[in-house]
Amino acid sequence: MADLRGGDLSRLRQLNSLTAIRELRGSGPLTLSALAERTGLSRPSMKEVTDELMALGWVEEVPPSQGTMGRPARRYRFRADSGHLVGVDIGGHNIRAALSDLDGRILAETRQPVLPGAPLAERLAAIERAVSGCLALSRTSVEQVWLISVGTVGTIDVEGRVIYSAAVPAWRDLDLAGALREVFPCQVLIENDSRLAAMAETRRGVAKGARDVVFLHVGRRMGAGLIIGGKVHRGFGAAAGEISMLPEARWFDAPEHLNTCACVPEGTPPHDAAGYTLAAARDGDPVAIEAVERYVDDLAVGAAAMVLIMDPQMVVLGGGFSRSADVLLDRLRERLERRCMRLPEVRASTLGDECVVVGAIDYAVEHLDEQLFTPDRGPLPVTR
Amino acid sequence: MADLRGGDLSRLRQLNSLTAIRELRGSGPLTLSALAERTGLSRPSMKEVTDELMALGWVEEVPPSQGTMGRPARRYRFRADSGHLVGVDIGGHNIRAALSDLDGRILAETRQPVLPGAPLAERLAAIERAVSGCLALSRTSVEQVWLISVGTVGTIDVEGRVIYSAAVPAWRDLDLAGALREVFPCQVLIENDSRLAAMAETRRGVAKGARDVVFLHVGRRMGAGLIIGGKVHRGFGAAAGEISMLPEARWFDAPEHLNTCACVPEGTPPHDAAGYTLAAARDGDPVAIEAVERYVDDLAVGAAAMVLIMDPQMVVLGGGFSRSADVLLDRLRERLERRCMRLPEVRASTLGDECVVVGAIDYAVEHLDEQLFTPDRGPLPVTR
Repeated sequence: MADLRGGDLSRLRQLNSLTAIRELRGSGPLTLSALAERTGLSRPSMKEVTDELMALGWVEEVPPSQGTMGRPARRYRFRADSGHLVGVDIGGHNIRAALSDLDGRILAETRQPVLPGAPLAERLAAIERAVSGCLALSRTSVEQVWLISVGTVGTIDVEGRVIYSAAVPAWRDLDLAGALREVFPCQVLIENDSRLAAMAETRRGVAKGARDVVFLHVGRRMGAGLIIGGKVHRGFGAAAGEISMLPEARWFDAPEHLNTCACVPEGTPPHDAAGYTLAAARDGDPVAIEAVERYVDDLAVGAAAMVLIMDPQMVVLGGGFSRSADVLLDRLRERLERRCMRLPEVRASTLGDECVVVGAIDYAVEHLDEQLFTPDRGPLPVTR
Repeated sequence: MADLRGGDLSRLRQLNSLTAIRELRGSGPLTLSALAERTGLSRPSMKEVTDELMALGWVEEVPPSQGTMGRPARRYRFRADSGHLVGVDIGGHNIRAALSDLDGRILAETRQPVLPGAPLAERLAAIERAVSGCLALSRTSVEQVWLISVGTVGTIDVEGRVIYSAAVPAWRDLDLAGALREVFPCQVLIENDSRLAAMAETRRGVAKGARDVVFLHVGRRMGAGLIIGGKVHRGFGAAAGEISMLPEARWFDAPEHLNTCACVPEGTPPHDAAGYTLAAARDGDPVAIEAVERYVDDLAVGAAAMVLIMDPQMVVLGGGFSRSADVLLDRLRERLERRCMRLPEVRASTLGDECVVVGAIDYAVEHLDEQLFTPDRGPLPVTR
């Protein structure tokens, strides 16, 4: 038998601790025997690992199940409530916030309306109110928040600086991560909103379990988010998914077919026009149908570029216009089938307006996992 | 101290064996102490691991370095020659083959010309001759080949079936993997040639170390290969990178600007016309320069689509026309800068005509590594 020295043992023990946390996360409470079986460890080794994790605050014992024969076995669970995560969706017209436990289970949500033209300070104040509202709803103090994960309109750089946003004029050359760190005393992550929506659909929405997904944000503005190999694809300079900038892809002006359709009654507020056209097409208005056909013609060029380049398993239609998915999906499928090597599944978002804020939570959970399960990350921190 | 049972120990030992192989691969011979330091194991544990790996044939002892004081330390190295890998490039006009050791070090190369219109049996026979030539050059028997990795023109499906090739008419609805398995008694991998070229440039060429790369195959036919997160991106149905199929991307007919330029003298063989135009542009012929400008205009549309969607670190220009990279690169850069959020590095291939066959070898090495280093893959096989 090998002469196992201290270094080997502590390495083995840390690996075992992480394996145990991984097994307990997401599963219900497990007995020592069940944990030992799932991890391939001996029961005595497993006991030592759980004792250590309890001392560090990651795991707790739960009361034994009722009605078992003989001496009931001890059971353990991951303490998902030992910390909290906050997700924020910064849109043109709304700020949404959500609070979750470390497993990403959502405990509270808030929404704050805001005007697209609101100055920077006003928008930051609305973000703070939305987050504070979540904390108050769930009686959580800001010190219990480990991580704030933010999805925003606009293009951002790798440091979380907003470079430019067509939807929010004040959102330009802004150190958003820095501004939020001044308000919230924890780690802040900034990501593009379409990417987080793509993530949410892949984690809990219509694309659950899919590895390669193209998310199309269709609404008054057009955007896209890519999931590759189960992970958000940011690109080298955090600028991936910006196909709308290519004139030949015909995305930039595509919504105008719906906004300016002759079927829209005079006096309709501009931001309701596209919705009116989509509803009229559903009801069979030939002028509206013609406008929808032209809209999907344009949408399909940029979408086909993404499908031909990525060959994803699924295309998800999200954003405001996806409420009219029944009018859009078959028309988009027909054009993609004609243009592409292989037609992926084409489905509508199931998370709707929540997809960005939910995606922000999922992104925070993934970030936490990466920090936890990185090899050689050093000893586990104490959580209480 | 934990009560370490048999199961825990064999798991630990297997992990340690793989860690040791990983350290020895690519590095020169290492002493026990150096190995122990790199892996974080104790010297006695390391000794047991190397003894086991020597018994299995993966590792061998090498003579001690000369000129050291005192008793020279034993040194060990990975037996990269315990098996062999073959790479094949099936092009329209040439079949190339290469033989390497398990580290991907190339030991022999051959080339067999073949006519684009050659029937299937003739093309398969040329492949067999190219591979046999490599084996003969390096005095290797076919039984010592673990894996044949093939890059081919045409679109392929996930099982290695060639669906269609514009360049080789006989290459259609063909079970290429199956046909090659009948000739060679080992595992066969089939991949698109542009993807393998992308891989070679990322492993040993101009994009060495880059994680996200767009490889543009520019020549008489147009193609593209993507590297994402350091790995070849195939797509869900192995159809990624097919942007040339989108008319709006303007790739399909782009080479015609060069082929049909008025500067080309009558009687020039069709396959030399583009090369003539590129050379004339280099020499300052204004008609040729105008044709090159129109060519790069078109090339830049599809390239910009890929850059905007992927945001890669680098774009690599490969394929036949990349021999004229001096005429093309700055023109392409200028257009991408105008069209894209962020201009990636734009560089010419450094592997030239070898890039597909070298990429096939790199793909085989990666496949071998994945088989070796998959967690819970079971015990290591005996290699002799």
